[in-house]
Amino acid sequence: MITITAFERSPDGGKGLARDTRVRWALEEVGQPYEVRGVSFAELKQPAHLALHPFGQIPTFEDGELALFESGAIVFHLAQRYPGLLPTEPNARARAITWMFAALNSVEPPILDLFTARVLEADKPWAKDRLALVEQRLRDRLSQLSARVGDAEWLDGAFSAGDLMMVSVLLRARPSGILGEFGNLAAYVARGEARPAYQRAFQAQHAYNTR
Amino acid sequence: MITITAFERSPDGGKGLARDTRVRWALEEVGQPYEVRGVSFAELKQPAHLALHPFGQIPTFEDGELALFESGAIVFHLAQRYPGLLPTEPNARARAITWMFAALNSVEPPILDLFTARVLEADKPWAKDRLALVEQRLRDRLSQLSARVGDAEWLDGAFSAGDLMMVSVLLRARPSGILGEFGNLAAYVARGEARPAYQRAFQAQHAYNTR
Repeated sequence: MITITAFERSPDGGKGLARDTRVRWALEEVGQPYEVRGVSFAELKQPAHLALHPFGQIPTFEDGELALFESGAIVFHLAQRYPGLLPTEPNARARAITWMFAALNSVEPPILDLFTARVLEADKPWAKDRLALVEQRLRDRLSQLSARVGDAEWLDGAFSAGDLMMVSVLLRARPSGILGEFGNLAAYVARGEARPAYQRAFQAQHAYNTR
Repeated sequence: MITITAFERSPDGGKGLARDTRVRWALEEVGQPYEVRGVSFAELKQPAHLALHPFGQIPTFEDGELALFESGAIVFHLAQRYPGLLPTEPNARARAITWMFAALNSVEPPILDLFTARVLEADKPWAKDRLALVEQRLRDRLSQLSARVGDAEWLDGAFSAGDLMMVSVLLRARPSGILGEFGNLAAYVARGEARPAYQRAFQAQHAYNTR
């Protein structure tokens, strides 16, 4: 049985923004059952968890003798191992994988910077002035993405692990209101959320975090 | 013939820190010849280049009908397509890929934050006070990585695309002096640099940027 880790209680209270949600979504898309092991904030930094995840975060993934960390790596593993999340034609497959990397490396960092500016550095004297700068960087990046997405349904042909990751990342920009400034990206995210597999994943993490 | 893009002149003047170096390195490891097309800063933001790279960056990769962007995706494509950069045993392969994602998502962002704090925000009133915070975050992350690496030669058994990416990312932390605070990581990076394929890649980008 596949076992993943999640926050014992997600800081977002079950809004689906913690990174276990994207792994749950991938598991639902490929139809694999899984168990969840909750990890407290104290346990994240203890040797037992650090052996699974050197950076003391969630999610992790265990399946028999295989143990993985990093949500991108876990979703990619599932997409390689089971059908449904990557095209079989080699070039289309390489492009879908490119969008996974793009979501994680070019889109998620400016979104996380917003969290840093708004939350981690909220009490700093520069908080307000710097926030405007960080928000502008995020707008610049989303503007580029919006131009590429246009009115396409998904990033490159059929729904893929690239879309799963991009939608998951973009969802984290929605509470700021900045996602909503880009109508086509907001609609793209809504298409992702409407997928039955996403709905099952969302409900599962919501039930877990409000148990 | 494979064609990649690089800065027409890298801002680092050929120190190997631009992201084409990691792609050159992967191409050298798998023994594939390639051509380089230089892109000026003005061209990066023009439609012809944006069609290849929606975020207006380098490197890109073209091989026949296939066009990719994102250094992680390009290195991964090469590692999948040619032998030499990923183990064949499935679990070892999944772990090596995990380190690629870890390098790009958990280690490179705090290193790029240092660049943001030191260069992009150097003229801001908060520059000095905030730099200490950003440096501490990077130390915390490298400390976790250092604990995991220990005295191992490579991250997980034989040298892999995971090491190629981690070494490439860590090299960007060296000019700050912070990499040098972690002796085992500095030695790990030096082992990467000593590989003949890295040496060829470094020389090629150096010659290109000093032509």
